Amino acid sequence: MRAVDIIRAKRDGGTLSAEQIEWMVGGIARGDVADYQWSALLMAILLKGMSGEETSALTMAMMRSGSIVDLSMFPGLKVDKHSTGGVGDKTSLILAPIAAAAGVPVPMVSGRGLGHTGGTLDKLESIPGFRTDLDLDGYRRVLRECGLVMIGQTAEIAPADKYLYGMRDATATVESIPLIAASIMSKKLAEGIDGLVLDVKTGNGAFMAKLEDARALAEAMCGIGRSMGKRITALITRMEQPLGLMVGNSLEVIESVECLNGGGPKDLMDLSLELAAEMVLLGGKAKSLEEARTTCRRVVDSGEALERFRRLVAAQGGDPTSLDDFSRLPTARSREDVVSPESGYVQRLAAWPIGHATMLLGAGRTRMDQGVDHAVGLCLQAKEGDFVKSGEPLCTLHYNDATRLTEAVAAVRSAFQIGPEPLSPADVIIDRLAD
Amino acid sequence: MRAVDIIRAKRDGGTLSAEQIEWMVGGIARGDVADYQWSALLMAILLKGMSGEETSALTMAMMRSGSIVDLSMFPGLKVDKHSTGGVGDKTSLILAPIAAAAGVPVPMVSGRGLGHTGGTLDKLESIPGFRTDLDLDGYRRVLRECGLVMIGQTAEIAPADKYLYGMRDATATVESIPLIAASIMSKKLAEGIDGLVLDVKTGNGAFMAKLEDARALAEAMCGIGRSMGKRITALITRMEQPLGLMVGNSLEVIESVECLNGGGPKDLMDLSLELAAEMVLLGGKAKSLEEARTTCRRVVDSGEALERFRRLVAAQGGDPTSLDDFSRLPTARSREDVVSPESGYVQRLAAWPIGHATMLLGAGRTRMDQGVDHAVGLCLQAKEGDFVKSGEPLCTLHYNDATRLTEAVAAVRSAFQIGPEPLSPADVIIDRLAD
Repeated sequence: MRAVDIIRAKRDGGTLSAEQIEWMVGGIARGDVADYQWSALLMAILLKGMSGEETSALTMAMMRSGSIVDLSMFPGLKVDKHSTGGVGDKTSLILAPIAAAAGVPVPMVSGRGLGHTGGTLDKLESIPGFRTDLDLDGYRRVLRECGLVMIGQTAEIAPADKYLYGMRDATATVESIPLIAASIMSKKLAEGIDGLVLDVKTGNGAFMAKLEDARALAEAMCGIGRSMGKRITALITRMEQPLGLMVGNSLEVIESVECLNGGGPKDLMDLSLELAAEMVLLGGKAKSLEEARTTCRRVVDSGEALERFRRLVAAQGGDPTSLDDFSRLPTARSREDVVSPESGYVQRLAAWPIGHATMLLGAGRTRMDQGVDHAVGLCLQAKEGDFVKSGEPLCTLHYNDATRLTEAVAAVRSAFQIGPEPLSPADVIIDRLAD
Repeated sequence: MRAVDIIRAKRDGGTLSAEQIEWMVGGIARGDVADYQWSALLMAILLKGMSGEETSALTMAMMRSGSIVDLSMFPGLKVDKHSTGGVGDKTSLILAPIAAAAGVPVPMVSGRGLGHTGGTLDKLESIPGFRTDLDLDGYRRVLRECGLVMIGQTAEIAPADKYLYGMRDATATVESIPLIAASIMSKKLAEGIDGLVLDVKTGNGAFMAKLEDARALAEAMCGIGRSMGKRITALITRMEQPLGLMVGNSLEVIESVECLNGGGPKDLMDLSLELAAEMVLLGGKAKSLEEARTTCRRVVDSGEALERFRRLVAAQGGDPTSLDDFSRLPTARSREDVVSPESGYVQRLAAWPIGHATMLLGAGRTRMDQGVDHAVGLCLQAKEGDFVKSGEPLCTLHYNDATRLTEAVAAVRSAFQIGPEPLSPADVIIDRLAD
């Protein structure tokens, strides 16, 4: 086989065979496919597309480029959740303990925040002592002890994805649905899971702004998962306004604990419970979604879910007492309110500028090699449909460094649109794709 | 500027500015644009196209990546010819001395054969002692002495083209009309010429098999030339059957000398005279094409053209007596006839298998680092429209190494199609594009 022939076939709109795709992905490790050949193929894929079979073959080859974790020694169906990323999205911290408490083993491999979006690893690491860099032995140990584990991607998992992701970033080939789907699924399927719940977000704060793109991505990922015999359910959810009220790492841990205590904002709690119920259904611990929902609510009300999270924190080196005494979590030194310029209903609260403001305060990063400030962030006092009075706070910024505070305040102000008409907030869950 | 933004703009079908294109080409020498970024852009250009302005900007930037030869110390308008390549195409050896004898300085930079096509440098180097690797000083000296010079591309000329050409070859991005046009024109316009005659070939033996592609390429190159204030004429010519009767390096030198002696096959002589007349017209040495044609015929009939070629051969180190005594040229040891299987008219004589057969005999190469056998090739005894009798030779193969002779014979046989209907050979010149 020759790379140039494979590139030409895709350039001309042809369909690549599984052998051709496997040979190209294998060429990364073998070293006989040049960087510039892969990037030309990526551009041809972006512009000409890939069939479901091609996307599955690419995912499989990327997955096989590294270790595939064997979790067969654990009884039961292992289920994970993946979100395409948003603002204030801390559902992982809530649903993983819920699903685990409901009897579904949850081996979760998560990512870090980038740009306006947050990442589960950064949030967890705001808990003093919490380690996310476990190796595969540690990963299995915590899963055995707690029924759940939450770590970052290890170097053994899907190295081809790491290679291709870096190249896509530099060659304007990120925005291809087959490439995005293969990147996500190759990592998730290497974790040793039996089932996966996908939270595909759409709206101004999501990677996929348009609903049709989110739907296409959800369908592509479901197709890949099914072609490998995995159980997959996807929810398409609204990411026009942030999820919950808190945005920022330790602030989101606090809000997650409030949810696990039975409190917390309704939109966040509802979505977390629904995703957890889908996990419980895929994990075979309920016969219907309704039964799964009842189970999930029960393990929250009984305190079992929070207890499970406490065990996880301890098992991964974190201070479990910080979940009861939030003053042990990193706290910002200063606060600044953004007040409403008029009285009326919040017509719109755009997620992107809120995420961007949080990043400006230091809670996020623009490049993967940057650190974050776990203490900073913001707390929303009003969301879409809420009535606010002129001069009352819309949002409180928690900051340590005032350098970019003015910019952050301006971003938050721009996110709110106040008007006279009352309105009901839109449903968070837009659609459900299941077998 | 960032490469990723430029790639994204082209990917999305946008138009790049001259500054963006110049920055990308400059990045090759600066080292801040990665190979894989350039190849992604090349694929986006191939699939999304380039406007005339973008193609001109790319050509200009590639031209400026190296030296631009200054020939302003020579009086008169300097004119070159470029052919997109074919089988048996030795017109350069005929028309350059004719145009020079007609008073037009001809600074010609040529290439080598690859695949089924021959190259002017290989043909010239079959003349014992002939050197094509002159530096720019030698180039100017021979031009001053002879009124013409014929060399190979130097490392100083358009290094960005060399870089991009190598990458295009490995990434299936060769077949893009803007990229082909920019590659050809960046080198030609760096030679210091005022005018250029293009011979854009179409047919089974040409790079552009389809007439519409040949026309688009001709138009793109004319547009580039005009945007830089150069005088450009393009002929679109038929490369369905080989030009002339001889194919192979020293054999083509012999046929060229026969043409300069006033003999030689009509199709070859007619095209060479027409291209030379276009050069004379662009060079301002005639007021009309008809007058230019008369001048060209006159310098052939008077022997001035052949005399000019003899001077060139001597000036570039070759043995001028070999032009009178062909036994001094490399001669193959063995011959093999391919005979006609039936009586009838040659309905078709496909150029590609003839070129391929010549390459199999060793006259050509499949990779640029291979040498060629200057002595071998073939001599056609019949062309399209000729009547042949069963058992009479269609073609004589001249060979030294019989290893691939059977393959070559089969290729030659496949090239001929004999049938009962008489037919007139098609005109070689299909169209003319001029200011």
